[in-house]
Amino acid sequence: MASLPSSLKQIALFFERLPGIGEKSANRLAFYLLRLPDEDLKSFGEQIMQLKARTKKCSHCLNLTEDLVCSICSDSSRDQSSITVVEDVLDLLSFENGNIYKGLYHVLHGRIDPLNHIGPDDIFISQLLERIYAKGSELKEIILATNPDMEGEATAMYIRNRLEELKKDKGFTFTVSRLGYGLPMGANLEYADYMTLRKAIENRNRY
Amino acid sequence: MASLPSSLKQIALFFERLPGIGEKSANRLAFYLLRLPDEDLKSFGEQIMQLKARTKKCSHCLNLTEDLVCSICSDSSRDQSSITVVEDVLDLLSFENGNIYKGLYHVLHGRIDPLNHIGPDDIFISQLLERIYAKGSELKEIILATNPDMEGEATAMYIRNRLEELKKDKGFTFTVSRLGYGLPMGANLEYADYMTLRKAIENRNRY
Repeated sequence: MASLPSSLKQIALFFERLPGIGEKSANRLAFYLLRLPDEDLKSFGEQIMQLKARTKKCSHCLNLTEDLVCSICSDSSRDQSSITVVEDVLDLLSFENGNIYKGLYHVLHGRIDPLNHIGPDDIFISQLLERIYAKGSELKEIILATNPDMEGEATAMYIRNRLEELKKDKGFTFTVSRLGYGLPMGANLEYADYMTLRKAIENRNRY
Repeated sequence: MASLPSSLKQIALFFERLPGIGEKSANRLAFYLLRLPDEDLKSFGEQIMQLKARTKKCSHCLNLTEDLVCSICSDSSRDQSSITVVEDVLDLLSFENGNIYKGLYHVLHGRIDPLNHIGPDDIFISQLLERIYAKGSELKEIILATNPDMEGEATAMYIRNRLEELKKDKGFTFTVSRLGYGLPMGANLEYADYMTLRKAIENRNRY
């Protein structure tokens, strides 16, 4: 790429660092920017520069917000007795967009992943325990909604054990649950993996 | 997306305007930015804001450059007697990355496309003719490398006719050629379209 001007090349190289963008797409994106109005680029550039300063973690659930408390935690119409624990803010948004859950969340910002040297203290588990401790008997259910893969399972299992200790110590009565496993809707049995099929059999329902 | 902070949402909406990026990827990209060091975001933001001011068109071939003349036109070791006419800078870069051509280029920045109201005067054809006129008999070949689709063919045909006029008027002797058509390397005959197969038969070579 000897002949790409450095103003474009630097932007393309930055795009290339983002997930799912290869060299060709990065170049196309950088070139595309040239077609946009200058004021749009100015405001985008400013937003990028201010992003980290403007975006904070909610002091309750660690969801991202520009205020002290996020819009979910400050919405008193939501069910205050239920907390769904997710790995990332994007997981939270999947639930919110589906409009399928009306309780509160807790964002771990990661998962226990020993191979990448991420232990229980590197994600926001202690904040979850403190929050549950403060809520006390108001709380009815904790839903562990980490991903159904190895690290997500390990994280869910670790948190479940800590929660069971807390319940025994303090006499709390909330239930701890995990997302249901089975065939995704619209799936084709022929292409389902064995683990999913086994879960689908185990979790079969009366019909 | 009621609960996405506006600092992130604005960035995600900008990403969504770029080609090939949908809502989900745009959100993922915006979130990913949060993980990058603040100084990287600062410099990326600045580059975006300065992009249009810093990037100019080469005064010879209209390739993008930060100088008056691009690195290709200012490289005297390149064959000055050959000009390849391409639609876009990305097409030029494809040739350059393949290291398959050592002459000069001319970038049209578009193609004749009547359905979208783009005529010969809306792309840089007159600049090409002036350049050829100035070069005079130094020039040996013009390679028309517009895309092999309807608009690219129309553009090539229009430029060829203008070049033939110029040759007749001024007694120039350069040849005008068009990229070869045929099966792409690694292709499967079974999946080739009829137009390509017809071209492959027409352009068959002694073996």
